[in-house]
This record gives sequence, structure tokens and C-alpha cells, in this order.
Amino acid sequence: MIANSPQKEKKENHSKQYNLIDCDVHHILPNFDTLMDYIEPGLKRRIELATNARSEARNAFQMPRRAYFNPTSTARVDTMDSDGTNHASIPQRVKEDLLDRYDITYAILMGNDLTTISGMPDPDLAAGITRAYNDWTNEHWIQYDSRFKHSIWVTPQDPIQAAAEIERWGDDPNVVQVGIAMMDVLAGKRHYWPIYEAAAKYNLPVGFHVGAESAGNNGSQLAVGAPTHYIELQTGVISIGIQNTISLVCEGVFAKFPNLKVALLEYGWTWLPGLMWRLDREWHSFRQEVPWVTKLPSDYIKDHIRVGSQPLEAPSKEYLHQTLEMMSAEKMMLFATDYPHWDFDDPNYVMRHLPEHMRKPIAYENARELYGL
Amino acid sequence: MIANSPQKEKKENHSKQYNLIDCDVHHILPNFDTLMDYIEPGLKRRIELATNARSEARNAFQMPRRAYFNPTSTARVDTMDSDGTNHASIPQRVKEDLLDRYDITYAILMGNDLTTISGMPDPDLAAGITRAYNDWTNEHWIQYDSRFKHSIWVTPQDPIQAAAEIERWGDDPNVVQVGIAMMDVLAGKRHYWPIYEAAAKYNLPVGFHVGAESAGNNGSQLAVGAPTHYIELQTGVISIGIQNTISLVCEGVFAKFPNLKVALLEYGWTWLPGLMWRLDREWHSFRQEVPWVTKLPSDYIKDHIRVGSQPLEAPSKEYLHQTLEMMSAEKMMLFATDYPHWDFDDPNYVMRHLPEHMRKPIAYENARELYGL
Repeated sequence: MIANSPQKEKKENHSKQYNLIDCDVHHILPNFDTLMDYIEPGLKRRIELATNARSEARNAFQMPRRAYFNPTSTARVDTMDSDGTNHASIPQRVKEDLLDRYDITYAILMGNDLTTISGMPDPDLAAGITRAYNDWTNEHWIQYDSRFKHSIWVTPQDPIQAAAEIERWGDDPNVVQVGIAMMDVLAGKRHYWPIYEAAAKYNLPVGFHVGAESAGNNGSQLAVGAPTHYIELQTGVISIGIQNTISLVCEGVFAKFPNLKVALLEYGWTWLPGLMWRLDREWHSFRQEVPWVTKLPSDYIKDHIRVGSQPLEAPSKEYLHQTLEMMSAEKMMLFATDYPHWDFDDPNYVMRHLPEHMRKPIAYENARELYGL
Repeated sequence: MIANSPQKEKKENHSKQYNLIDCDVHHILPNFDTLMDYIEPGLKRRIELATNARSEARNAFQMPRRAYFNPTSTARVDTMDSDGTNHASIPQRVKEDLLDRYDITYAILMGNDLTTISGMPDPDLAAGITRAYNDWTNEHWIQYDSRFKHSIWVTPQDPIQAAAEIERWGDDPNVVQVGIAMMDVLAGKRHYWPIYEAAAKYNLPVGFHVGAESAGNNGSQLAVGAPTHYIELQTGVISIGIQNTISLVCEGVFAKFPNLKVALLEYGWTWLPGLMWRLDREWHSFRQEVPWVTKLPSDYIKDHIRVGSQPLEAPSKEYLHQTLEMMSAEKMMLFATDYPHWDFDDPNYVMRHLPEHMRKPIAYENARELYGL
């Protein structure tokens, strides 16, 4: 498991043997007022009016907030002072706590405050706030220590304004990335192409960062929009398998119905090992939110969920066998051909590729048990 | 790669050494009229009225259809006769082509025609068609050969009617599964619990099958609905990484902008090997749909997409190293701490767990190249 707070120095300090670039560091505004000096007069006035304490709170200006709240705290507890100050709002603290402590060569700064900006309905307001934020970051952070590198934010709601912001910073050697908070348009859609064009012009990568799912005007985390082609639909159904597996476990379906099993057919299975690791890990942090999940999520998954073998996909026998081993396929996998569909799996093909010791359970025993045959 | 048609018998026939249960076989209605004799009079009359050839075609009755079409054919070409007859509509052909040919002990029948039923707006009509379909399947297929086992369909739109249908079949020894076509409610939601209760009562597994995404009243494949808890949101963002990676490649973003790179931060990475295998495989079948994707999708992904290391998740060093190897992490992964967030990855922890030969590229070189530092 991964430590929630820095571990005590081990005798051998592995990280010191390597140059380090930390690609995801979140600096934070001390408060929103700090930004107001950087916002253009017209937009500043709009925000001032809408933050008036006499306005109804539910209509007052605020940055987009997620519909979900972290049941504990999004900040590492030891990075917060008792008065609420987050060390990540103080350049000197980040320098000491992170750069100096771990000998980090470069830290890419992705301002924490704008990870939800794509949920703001008004694209002009979002773009104005983004410009101000980039200016503030440059002045207070990038100029403070040359190890801080700038991932500027742009507003995905208006790709033309986003491209203009890239133009404004493109030649700055400290700017190393164009940051975008996901919105409910899939990343490949033409909507974004002006942003990509500008980023490509300056050889800047585009960094999509998590955070805006369910924030402000954005839909749930799944509302990334409909894909364009059949190949995207066909490949992407694995995400439906993932989401539904999470949902089945976390809603307590298997705690409530201990003898219920679920077979997921044609939703793929290569995602299972990673999903089980991730869900187990998150459960260690968040299990108070789902108290009915009383054992490891991967235990529920292995006990209650079965997956069809078709399509059996892997580029090599070695990787296939490793993946099957990681997911306990000898327990979870059910042989299937998907006859008469175009991507029918020939039983000889499947059996030949499975590891010897998994053939019987996958071919027969798992299904026999599942279906009571 | 997986063959699209049965392979010639190999010298050693591996599958014959094992008992086989085929968990996903799709029998098909010869035509919808076949079902009409099984539909209750009131609903039958409704369907007859709405299939009247004189009604506007766009308002005539039809089973829910997907918004996307397979650019070639969903049926294996050699299972279709030139007059349009699919072998999967003829019990004797399925017996010969599948059961006898491969010595299959049991085949679980999941009727092809109802994989979109969850997209039908009217729950009573959907339930009535489902009941008729189960009766027809039982009479024409299950009674035909004892190796055919019945995965009855139930209609997820009305869980109470679905539970009643399970009650109707629960004691039938040939019924081995409750089949559900996904709809835009996540599988763990309480909506489904009456179905789960009935399935659990009869010790029947629930089988979710792909097919209804974008069909009829259902939204796109992503419209599986919003999850309930933070842990689901936090775990499930990997599906956003997956969907957006697919979208970026398939929409041709990297073909159009050959020097563009994209960093995906905090969307996880354990899903990358499986996604690359699957997308490469689908591309071999469907590349005519996305002609601008002129090389393997995994080549675009490896060349253009980078993923943050945080959170570094794996239950064991062995599995971690295998997964990193499969995804070419020495090329694709960027070290990140996510400071100051609660799930901060300590650099010592990360470096200690990475394979020796990947430490330098992940810690430094990949980011240096990406950010031009």
C-alpha cells in the first residue's frame, strides 16, 4: 500500500540516486481575493457584484465545485496548519517540503484552484479567471524558484480563447504544458482542435487533469460525451464493465445478496487486475463512506463477478498469462465463443492460449459452479 | 490476433481434452413474426398496429436499434447464407456448427434479439416481448437439445416485472442465468435490487450483456449514470482516461498534429496494456472507419500519450513490474507526487518500487523530453 504521509527515510534513499521531475504539483491560491488584482476590470466587477454578501448564497459567485465531496480531506493532513493554511499556498513551504527535501530537479505546477474551471457555464468568465491565474502563478511561483515549471491553464469551453492564451505564453521558456480540466466533450472531438493546434505550434504537451467531473455545469464523471465511431464504442465498452463493477461492490449489492453472482459478458477483462488494486486501495481510505463493504473489494469481485473469455486479447502468451494470473482467471473467467458473431473465439484457439492449469476451470468448472450444472 | 473464422484443426486439438461450457451463444429469431404467436393479445395488437406498412416508417414499431452500426457485419460471415439466413436462427445448425464440432458440453443461450431491449421506452411492452422471447427460446431451443441452457432475459426498465419473470422460471432446471441488457442506470443502484433479490432467491447469476449502449432510449455507451459515492468517483475516473485515449486516437488528433503530446494525470495507468491490446485488435477489424489512423493505435498511444505515476498502485512488486513492462512505462510514465493531496506518493516509495531500468526514464528523462527541459 502507498503511504498517506512521507515515510521515514529508509537506510538506502533510492530517490536521491535519480534526477526527479515531479509532473503533478498543485499550488493553491491563499484565497480567491488574491486573484482579484489580476482579473480584468469588467470581469472583476461582475465577480465583485456576485460575491456581495447580501446576495442569496445559492446564487453567489463561486468557483465550480464538485457534486461529490471527499469523505476526509483532499489535502495531505500534514500539509495543513490548524488555521486552515495549506502549505501548498506558500512557495517557500513547497520549496522546502518538496523540492529541497527530495532533491527534485523540476516541479510542474498545475494550480489546484482551476481543476474545476471547465464546469463554469460562462466561457468568458472562465477564460478571464484562467488568464489571471496564469499571471499570478508566473509572478508568485515561477519567478520564485527556477525549479518550478508552469503548466498554464486554458479554458476548454472556448477553444479560441484557449488558443489565444497559448499564444500569449508559448514563447515563455518556463511554460512547459497546456493544462485542461476535462469537460463533457470527449478529448478527441473537433471542439478541442484549435487548442491542439496552438499547443502543437509551440511544442507544448496538453495535460488533462482530473477534478472537474461533476463540477459546476459538468455532468457526472461519465459525462465525457458520446464517441463518434463504432470502433470507439466497441473498444470503450470496457469502461462500462469498470463502472458497473465499482458500482456493484460499492453500493453493497453483494453484501445485501451474499449468494448473488454477476457475469459480465463482452465487457472485456484485462482491466480487472488494475481495477481491483485501485478499488482496494481507495477502500482503505474511504471505507467509512460504504460501511457495508466489510471486506476487500477485490474479495467481493472474485467471489461474485465472472467475466466471459471472449474476446481473448493479448499480444503475447507471456502477457496473457501474466494478466490472467493477476486477475485470478482460474476463478473468474468463463469460456465463451460469442457465436455467431464476427469476432467468434475458436475454442481451440482459446484453450491453446490459456495456461495449462487454468484450462479446466475456465473451460468448464467455473461455469458449472456458476450455473449449478 | 484472434481469428475471425474457425481455424483449421491443429495437429493437437487442445480443446478436445477439456469439457467445455460456452457461456455466450446467441441464438436468433428467424424474424420478428415468429415471436408474435407468443405475445399476449393486448400487446400483440399494439405491435401489429404500429408495424402497419402505411404508417410513417420513422414512427413504426421496431425493436430498439443502436445508434452506431458495425462497419462490416456483426455475424461471422460463414454463419450467414446468401439469402440472409443466419445459422444461429436454426437449432440444428448451431448443434452441428458449435456443439458437435467442438464437443461442447453446455451452451448458455443469450438470445441475440433482446440485447437492446433495455432501450425500449415502454416497460410493459418490453416486459411482454421478453416473456414471449423466453417462451419461444424454451420451446424451440432448450427443448431441442439438452446441451442448450437458458439465460432468460428480463426487462431492467421495470424491476418488479423482471422479478416476476424470474419467479416464473426460477424452478426450471434448464434456466441457469438472468440476462439483462445494460441501461443507463448503474448496475449497483437500488433500481435493480428487486431483480437481484429474485435472482438470489433461485441461486441464479445475473448476466449483463453488451449491446444496448446507444440503443433506443438509452444514451451513449457512457450513459450508465452517475455513481453514488466518492469512492466510486475516485476509482472510476480510470474509465475517463480510457474513453479519452480511445477518442484521441480514433478521431485522428495525433495524425493531424504529429508533434502533439497529451499527459493524462491522475487517470490511472494499469488499464493501458489491456486498452492497447483491445484497440489494436479492433483497429485490425475496423480501420476503414478511421482511415487517418494509419498505424497501430498502440503506436500512437506510446508516441503521444504520457501518464502520471501517481497513484502507483499494485499489490506486489512482481505484478507492478509486469504491468509496467506491458505498458512500456519506461517510455510512457511520468513521475508525480500529487503534492499536497492526501494520496501523495513519496518519491522514495516510488523509486524503490520501480524496476531499476525504468527509474531514470520515469523519474526524469520522459518528463525532460515531454516538457523540453
